[in-house]
Amino acid sequence: MASPSSDLDRERRKCTFNVAELTDIINGGREKTERRQYLESLVLNEPIFNYDDYYFLSREEKYSDAVKKTVRLVQVLKQHNIEDPEDYQTLLKYVLNLNLPIALHNSMFRPTIRDQGTDEQRKKWLPLANDYKIIGTYAQTELGHGTFIRGLETTSTYDPKREEFVLNTPTLTATKWWPGCLGKTSTHAVVMAQLYIKNQCYGIHSFIIQLRSLKDHSPMPGVTVGDIGNKVGLETNDNGFLAMDNVRIPRENMLMRHAQVYPDGTYRKPANSKLVYGTMVLLRATVVSESATNLSKAATIAIRYSCVRRQTEAKPGELEPQIIDYVTQQHKLVPQLATAYAFAWIARYMMSTYHALHADIESGHLGALQELHGISSGLKAFTAEMSVSGIEVCRRACGGHGFSAASGLVSMYKDRLPSCTYEGENTVLYLQTARFLLKCFRQPSITPSSMSYIQVKPLPGARWGVKSPEDLMKPILLVEAFEHRAQRTIKSAAQFLESQISQGLDTSEAMNRSGIEFVRCAKAHCYYFVTRNFFQSTALLKCSKEIKESLLTLGVVFALNGIADNSGEFLEDCFITGTQMEFVRERILYCYKQLRPNLVGLVDAFAFADQSLNSALGAYDGDVYNRLYNWAKRAPLNKTDVHSSYHKYLKPILKSKI
Amino acid sequence: MASPSSDLDRERRKCTFNVAELTDIINGGREKTERRQYLESLVLNEPIFNYDDYYFLSREEKYSDAVKKTVRLVQVLKQHNIEDPEDYQTLLKYVLNLNLPIALHNSMFRPTIRDQGTDEQRKKWLPLANDYKIIGTYAQTELGHGTFIRGLETTSTYDPKREEFVLNTPTLTATKWWPGCLGKTSTHAVVMAQLYIKNQCYGIHSFIIQLRSLKDHSPMPGVTVGDIGNKVGLETNDNGFLAMDNVRIPRENMLMRHAQVYPDGTYRKPANSKLVYGTMVLLRATVVSESATNLSKAATIAIRYSCVRRQTEAKPGELEPQIIDYVTQQHKLVPQLATAYAFAWIARYMMSTYHALHADIESGHLGALQELHGISSGLKAFTAEMSVSGIEVCRRACGGHGFSAASGLVSMYKDRLPSCTYEGENTVLYLQTARFLLKCFRQPSITPSSMSYIQVKPLPGARWGVKSPEDLMKPILLVEAFEHRAQRTIKSAAQFLESQISQGLDTSEAMNRSGIEFVRCAKAHCYYFVTRNFFQSTALLKCSKEIKESLLTLGVVFALNGIADNSGEFLEDCFITGTQMEFVRERILYCYKQLRPNLVGLVDAFAFADQSLNSALGAYDGDVYNRLYNWAKRAPLNKTDVHSSYHKYLKPILKSKI
Ligand SMILES: Cc1cc2nc3c(=O)[nH]c(=O)nc-3n(C[C@H](O)[C@H](O)[C@H](O)COP(=O)(O)OP(=O)(O)OC[C@H]3O[C@@H](n4cnc5c(N)ncnc54)[C@H](O)[C@@H]3O)c2cc1C
Ligand SMILES: Cc1cc2nc3c(=O)[nH]c(=O)nc-3n(C[C@H](O)[C@H](O)[C@H](O)COP(=O)(O)OP(=O)(O)OC[C@H]3O[C@@H](n4cnc5c(N)ncnc54)[C@H](O)[C@@H]3O)c2cc1C
Repeated sequence: MASPSSDLDRERRKCTFNVAELTDIINGGREKTERRQYLESLVLNEPIFNYDDYYFLSREEKYSDAVKKTVRLVQVLKQHNIEDPEDYQTLLKYVLNLNLPIALHNSMFRPTIRDQGTDEQRKKWLPLANDYKIIGTYAQTELGHGTFIRGLETTSTYDPKREEFVLNTPTLTATKWWPGCLGKTSTHAVVMAQLYIKNQCYGIHSFIIQLRSLKDHSPMPGVTVGDIGNKVGLETNDNGFLAMDNVRIPRENMLMRHAQVYPDGTYRKPANSKLVYGTMVLLRATVVSESATNLSKAATIAIRYSCVRRQTEAKPGELEPQIIDYVTQQHKLVPQLATAYAFAWIARYMMSTYHALHADIESGHLGALQELHGISSGLKAFTAEMSVSGIEVCRRACGGHGFSAASGLVSMYKDRLPSCTYEGENTVLYLQTARFLLKCFRQPSITPSSMSYIQVKPLPGARWGVKSPEDLMKPILLVEAFEHRAQRTIKSAAQFLESQISQGLDTSEAMNRSGIEFVRCAKAHCYYFVTRNFFQSTALLKCSKEIKESLLTLGVVFALNGIADNSGEFLEDCFITGTQMEFVRERILYCYKQLRPNLVGLVDAFAFADQSLNSALGAYDGDVYNRLYNWAKRAPLNKTDVHSSYHKYLKPILKSKI
Repeated sequence: MASPSSDLDRERRKCTFNVAELTDIINGGREKTERRQYLESLVLNEPIFNYDDYYFLSREEKYSDAVKKTVRLVQVLKQHNIEDPEDYQTLLKYVLNLNLPIALHNSMFRPTIRDQGTDEQRKKWLPLANDYKIIGTYAQTELGHGTFIRGLETTSTYDPKREEFVLNTPTLTATKWWPGCLGKTSTHAVVMAQLYIKNQCYGIHSFIIQLRSLKDHSPMPGVTVGDIGNKVGLETNDNGFLAMDNVRIPRENMLMRHAQVYPDGTYRKPANSKLVYGTMVLLRATVVSESATNLSKAATIAIRYSCVRRQTEAKPGELEPQIIDYVTQQHKLVPQLATAYAFAWIARYMMSTYHALHADIESGHLGALQELHGISSGLKAFTAEMSVSGIEVCRRACGGHGFSAASGLVSMYKDRLPSCTYEGENTVLYLQTARFLLKCFRQPSITPSSMSYIQVKPLPGARWGVKSPEDLMKPILLVEAFEHRAQRTIKSAAQFLESQISQGLDTSEAMNRSGIEFVRCAKAHCYYFVTRNFFQSTALLKCSKEIKESLLTLGVVFALNGIADNSGEFLEDCFITGTQMEFVRERILYCYKQLRPNLVGLVDAFAFADQSLNSALGAYDGDVYNRLYNWAKRAPLNKTDVHSSYHKYLKPILKSKI
């Protein structure tokens, strides 16, 4: 066996570019790198943030441990006056490997009060929340309803005599179910409920409810609250349930920035009913960014391990190859690496678009909301789906050891899985995106400039301008292919819908029957959008020739695999020919070869601390086997040589007593 | 809300066929159903086999619980004189939802001694093993080597003076790692090690080692053994490590049916070096069967839930639709149901082929071994991969509740994941299958009759004979499409390999560079094989017209989705046209509609007991919400209203003490 550390050393010597330069690009500049390093230094050296035996903890221990870490994090933030949400995000991304039991407090509770509270409400609640004197969550989903918000059953009935709202959970299915941090941690919640005034229902509105006593944390009168039980992952989070029995709150606890209920029960409706969804868009942008980060981590682990792992003698007597040198292994991992970069770039685009459009919305330009919604829904679904499946590809590529918790890939995978479901179930989001695309297709006037390509009708006999494998290195031709595919599938989804309607179906059933076509065109749009953004962003970078070359090659891999994996969509209308598909496959191999010397450099550049990967397979030094061995020795089952179940159960059969 | 149970009642009334008749077909006849019911009755009513709070247990509790259940199972088997391995398999399949800590004893230890032991060895060891006086495992994989068996480093050195073998773990990476049931349960193991006689290495052979004392279960002198730590799933299994330091065993402990070491150290090699892999083929056939069973369970849960779950008002004022009526939902679940049936049929084919060929091999006809190996490798990889991804599709299709452990889909998914890795890593298996296919392609003489299609050269200008959507209901045309694709991809993999060699690469590097093409053709072959078998098996069934119709439609769904999901492979050489692809999509929708009334009947027919699904979402009565609620109430975090972490950590920040 070659020594693992010498294998990685050799890889690092082969890298053609300066890794630190690429790290700065990924972080968004030298200053950001320094800020990140400063933040990491505050936390990484504290024993409390150690994760060594984390994978051995039970569900309950994980929750407790997370509360402990959370509280220490809050202390650190206070001590060092860290208040910028971006700093908080950086800590979550690079240092804390877990879903905090105060996640919703910062991602939903505070933003919702900020976006939907009046000035007085902000003044009352935000200081308490900012100071963690209260901890809040966001309770929307119920046992019976998640996707269909209008179907929520929780009621909030206005009592003008006492100027109070009375909250109730009228049925079992009305029980709030799933909200993060609701079960055991939060003292307060923004609760979504049907507003009733004088027997009339005014639809869903937001109310601040106190869940637990600030004296002893016991549930408030009329409040039944608890944990919803074990899940695939997110063991650190106490996703909870909540039932309310005549819980009374003052009128001032309804969030009234957009809609108001006056003391006498007069109702004033919001200027735009969609305004309340603003916070959700931010959360979807966050999912995009988390999808990028986690796929980067997974690629780091699997690529480092694949340079250390040697398996299967290729030539008798020679050292076994590093598994990264198998083309099938490259075909698993290089596309994930390319996708991680593509998602990092689109995450940055999403965030800056969010901030720009959010400012527009604040100042009353509501048009941007639809665009934001249309873009963010699809990209959330697309990046969550590809990131989750990419993490699993990385995990499997580690063979048997990938199945061990010590790989670090297991808990990452489990914790990312629900990103395909929460913040909008993926299929539902694709359908929404498709509806927006079709709207743009029909109405040029509402089409935002970022989507103007939809207005260009694809030529029926259009052919791809690729004449040779070398042509496939040209971004313009690659983007063109995705653009054509998106245009064609949007058009054919529109035609499909028309044909259903002309067969006499009513709109809702025609839409339903077009669902598969809708999802197809939404995905095609997203792939186009991400590919285009990759090349645009990379072109703008000021960096060394070597880095630009590597990034461009990664972009080509992202694009070509997108074509190869969905080849039917490009071949079906003869836009691409069989010969061109052969070029595509040939070029993919060529790119893998080009990138091979730089693979370790490209993952090193993400600069994840070992602690944040928490992986025996992916640590910087490559000392895989010692780590696996030393970790296993500490496993709970190894506390005694002979396990108690031997005495309890096994002994009698072995001794043939039964 | 409609009542969930009335929803399922209505579904059941709509079903066009007799569910019990289909159950008999699935079980393989009325007698088999009765036998299954008898076996179920022995176990299902015992409180020990209750799984109610199983999902709340910690890793260690799960292991203990599994030992308890195992011991009781062994008692039941003994009490009722149940010795047929098929009965044991039936119990595992339909009653025991877990990977037993004696799994390897029955799946590998006993079969290996039977297949590789001499008559005396069988006589000595099998009665002990059959009676559970010893519990064995199969220890092959090491920290450093899984796939590449010849690379194993454990040594077994013959000492002619004492007529003993001396076993050693010469390096860290030589430590046995992963074998199931090795860590805490097994008393013995068949250990694979490099045989050394007088400084010469004779390669890998099997040795029986005693790991633990039969008196007190403590590790034997020189043996270091333990659990390898937490994993994604399989928490009930103590996958273990083993290091040996001069462990001595008598000469008679080498399994000598095929190779022998005489007392003086003379070595006689086996007639065929591949003979030792026979047991592995059986295990791969078992994976195929388990893939079928588990996908059937997942489809049962998700389809029942989708008939009970209602979401998103389609028409204002009307009851929300059952989510199964969304075409996108059908497009998730119906293909999984179709695949479950396809895999059930191919599993039966695999098992009967195994038994037929195994008899051939026993009587000295070794030719069958290669065929068996070629067929089983690919089908293991193919079914494991599709079953695992299908279970995840089912899980996600349940929205938020799919992420809860109570869905039953979570632990099923986690426990099935490693089937893509163990018994041969999937990529490695596809590559082996491809090599076999290419060999057949070149050498008609060695081609088994089940693969004679490879000899038919695809016509370059061949076109699919489908003229209308109705044509797509004809099995012969569907099978033809898959046959053509397999033939074409095998041929093009062969050509690709040639082209690499003609470019001057040596064979091993040319093979490596052809890896992606190899995997492609292996998958194409498997899809063809499974599709062909589906229609052949269904055609032979004697059953009611209604059942045959439903099964045929499922076959069409399996085939058409195979074409739609891989459309590029059919379009690339213009075998299928764009218009035909439109027919395919249209027909898929048509089949969903046809099958819609029978979906619940088709899953009811699998006849899984509620206990064996252990799912709040998938129970027979559909009482989803009460089950979720009552289960959550019992969650460990809900033992107290205020969790201990409040007192320990949270209180100070809420009280602003920090
Ligand atoms: C880990 C986790 C954390 C969560 N955190 C929170 C939280 O903090 N606060 C909160 O309020 N909620 C939270 N949720 C709930 C989450 O937002 C919902 O689960 C999610 O919105 C999906 O809704 P659902 O569960 O009702 O799925 P369903 O809508 O029931 O989806 C089930 C299936 O039906 C399909 N379907 C539904 N409607 C349609 C349609 N119109 N057309 C086609 N197909 C359709 C879906 O595609 C899916 O396949 C969380 C959930 C999870 C898993
Ligand atoms: C849950 C579980 C239970 C197990 N139970 C047992 C047991 O009871 N007894 C036992 O002995 N073992 C057991 N194993 C071990 C198992 O058999 C091995 O993990 C498996 O064979 C894969 O080998 P590996 O781990 O060495 O993977 P590797 O070979 O290291 O695979 C890593 C990657 O390298 C690639 N690769 C490797 N070789 C090649 C090649 N030649 N060409 C192209 N790509 C290649 C693979 O495709 C994969 O992507 C178990 C494993 C698991 C996860």
